[in-house]
Amino acid sequence: MKVEIEKLISHLKTQGFVFQGSEIYGGLANSWDYGPLGAEVKNKLKKLWWDFFVRRNEYNVGLDSSIILNSKVWQASGHLGNFNDPLIDCKKCKSRFRADKLIEEKFTEMNVGGWTNQEIEEFIKEKSINCPKCDANDFTNIRQFTLMFKTNQGVVEDEASTVYLRPETAQGIFVQYKNSQRALRKKLPFGIGQIGKSFRNEITPGNFIFRTREFEQMELEFFFSPNDSNDWFEYWLEKVKFFLEKVVLIDQQNYSIREHDKEELAHYAKRTVDIEFDFPFGRGELWGIAHRSDFDLNQHQSHSGQDLTYLDPETNEKYLANVIEPSVGVERLLLAIFCQSYVEEQLENGERIVMKLPYKLAPYSVAIMPLQKQQKEKANELYKEILLDFDATFDETGNIGKRYRRQDAIGTPYCVTVDFDTENDNCVTVRNRDTMEQERIEIIKLKEYLLTKLI
Amino acid sequence: MKVEIEKLISHLKTQGFVFQGSEIYGGLANSWDYGPLGAEVKNKLKKLWWDFFVRRNEYNVGLDSSIILNSKVWQASGHLGNFNDPLIDCKKCKSRFRADKLIEEKFTEMNVGGWTNQEIEEFIKEKSINCPKCDANDFTNIRQFTLMFKTNQGVVEDEASTVYLRPETAQGIFVQYKNSQRALRKKLPFGIGQIGKSFRNEITPGNFIFRTREFEQMELEFFFSPNDSNDWFEYWLEKVKFFLEKVVLIDQQNYSIREHDKEELAHYAKRTVDIEFDFPFGRGELWGIAHRSDFDLNQHQSHSGQDLTYLDPETNEKYLANVIEPSVGVERLLLAIFCQSYVEEQLENGERIVMKLPYKLAPYSVAIMPLQKQQKEKANELYKEILLDFDATFDETGNIGKRYRRQDAIGTPYCVTVDFDTENDNCVTVRNRDTMEQERIEIIKLKEYLLTKLI
Repeated sequence: MKVEIEKLISHLKTQGFVFQGSEIYGGLANSWDYGPLGAEVKNKLKKLWWDFFVRRNEYNVGLDSSIILNSKVWQASGHLGNFNDPLIDCKKCKSRFRADKLIEEKFTEMNVGGWTNQEIEEFIKEKSINCPKCDANDFTNIRQFTLMFKTNQGVVEDEASTVYLRPETAQGIFVQYKNSQRALRKKLPFGIGQIGKSFRNEITPGNFIFRTREFEQMELEFFFSPNDSNDWFEYWLEKVKFFLEKVVLIDQQNYSIREHDKEELAHYAKRTVDIEFDFPFGRGELWGIAHRSDFDLNQHQSHSGQDLTYLDPETNEKYLANVIEPSVGVERLLLAIFCQSYVEEQLENGERIVMKLPYKLAPYSVAIMPLQKQQKEKANELYKEILLDFDATFDETGNIGKRYRRQDAIGTPYCVTVDFDTENDNCVTVRNRDTMEQERIEIIKLKEYLLTKLI
Repeated sequence: MKVEIEKLISHLKTQGFVFQGSEIYGGLANSWDYGPLGAEVKNKLKKLWWDFFVRRNEYNVGLDSSIILNSKVWQASGHLGNFNDPLIDCKKCKSRFRADKLIEEKFTEMNVGGWTNQEIEEFIKEKSINCPKCDANDFTNIRQFTLMFKTNQGVVEDEASTVYLRPETAQGIFVQYKNSQRALRKKLPFGIGQIGKSFRNEITPGNFIFRTREFEQMELEFFFSPNDSNDWFEYWLEKVKFFLEKVVLIDQQNYSIREHDKEELAHYAKRTVDIEFDFPFGRGELWGIAHRSDFDLNQHQSHSGQDLTYLDPETNEKYLANVIEPSVGVERLLLAIFCQSYVEEQLENGERIVMKLPYKLAPYSVAIMPLQKQQKEKANELYKEILLDFDATFDETGNIGKRYRRQDAIGTPYCVTVDFDTENDNCVTVRNRDTMEQERIEIIKLKEYLLTKLI
């Protein structure tokens, strides 16, 4: 695969998948909007996740918590104190950088996650890491820059009304863990899944929709007894792999699994695994699975003064649940799928671009087309009927070859053409996106045919 | 109907539909989280809207634009200048109020929408409208208070980086109108629908989830030629009524239609209709349908310098499209549905609370239960199988009567019980939520039975 990212961005824009945010006003740094086709793919992707991890999973339930929470939540979670990036300025050209990234981009094998600011500063000096903009080696000291977007709620702009846009959906789950468990009389183990927007004021967002300040997460927090001998980490890792390979059809050779070593682990984490995807710009984190122990519940228990323990009905013990968190960004997963789907094919009579999206994620499942103007009415009738059961589009502009190319370019699995013979034989021509093979199907059997094929 | 709102709130909390936001930290003013059951209902409601207004509509497409836009968007739309509430303080007790609401709450038939600040101030003095808190009649002058949440993006906190959380999703649509039209080669008339969060820093939010600072909208902007002689306003008004009555089953007698009179109309609006629902706390706006003329496109065209006209391929004329906007808040519609669904029924052997949710909106379609512990394994097998095709829950705690009540209380349309006879006759007992009638169904025919009933 290895599509060039600029080619992909241009294709996704032209076809109505992804537009630059606020484009008519010159854009807004690293902001992207999902056009008519992108919105469909994104919705379908979210639904697949929700069905797999929430609705069709015997243990789990869902949640939809607020973006703006009481600020005490971020004190307890540690975000107010620690969710910072080390910011450094070039004294010569005044450019700003993330100090850790300066090192990691030059020494790609290094991970400075656990380093102190002083260690980072000294390393930059010693190894003569220069400013990527002006090549000087004269930086300011590191300052911590909070990644949370701050705003004010209510009619007075003072400290009391300061609130933050959530930087992750997970804390909303922890805060409503007890309410959810109690209302649904859930026994451990069980999980709570959530899909929603999060916001991080990244110093250096970029790589298209890979890292944006406004993004959407799909997070599951799975709660279980510390005495439970099942390996729930392995269980969820397998589920995530199954979802990637069997549900959204990510090719096994396009991703890899990276186990965090001891130094890299957060102090409370028992194990963390990153699933990384080979993006055009390099390998990047796609899905993180973390064993967070009872860290979050413990923090919220002590900061809120509420009892968040679970009373085990079998052993009569009280304890805080442990947590496994599989967490993935919607846009990252979408980007991985886009990258893998974009294919340029040489044909006998030219070339075509095909978005080989999984059928379940294609914006339209079927395109209905009249071969010529004479069949427009008949085709439009069929379109309206097909529309009752399928995601369908009507395509009448240009010659049939052009229309096939257009549907290939947006990933429509099946094109259905009403032609001269249809009036006599009550059949239509059905063409498959990937094989480009055509079949003659009776109209009366079309729905059944499509249903079988689109599973 | 006329459920007491406090009773409803308490029920929705206990059953896991709606929790107070950040509750363990004492909450956050007027913030609500959707628990496991509420999240399902909300998702289903959004999906019904999307299917009806976007995917299954022959004219429309969808969009998913950002919450944070370039601030020039809000200059063009007029929100930066005009999206304010008139704020007034009681000089004695320092309480703050919306001056317009002070009047409208005392004189419930009045609408001061078009009044100047001075008119409002004088009316409050003349009619001796006193402070609702301390009963004094000594207010400050009115100050305009912006309803947009302000934050800073990027690493420098200055004017240039000031951004706002969108107060409506509509402007995201106008800004991407041209990109969407072009990419999909759309001809007028066509519409763009969007579902997403909006934020308004209301001075006096309230009435549970009716008015909250963070909320979700479902908006459609329908674009058409100024020369089009079809009455698209009537068309969309009828669609909205159809959706209310036939899709989410709002009782005709629970809502009414209010036509805005000339004085109430915004200067650019040709017609506006509010669909109002009889909430327990009074009649409130549910769905607004507005003819916005070419106001928004015109504003964005002149502020952005981009050509937003449409070249009519038939007449070769260039013009700005006119717009009809049906706009509804997800939570308001949800509240209307909750209010209408909550029923207390007297039975022969006591009473029951039933959430008579439309089947399509019930969090679970089916509850699978073993009559006694002996049937647990068999019932659990059946549950896992049913879960592949239905939103199902497993309920094993308490006697069967209690479990029926519990499922009634959360609106589950069908309860399926595995009992002593199941082993011999391979049948289960299926009970309907509304009629409470029970039928004996062969397990092999259960899926088909449920499919037919749940349509």
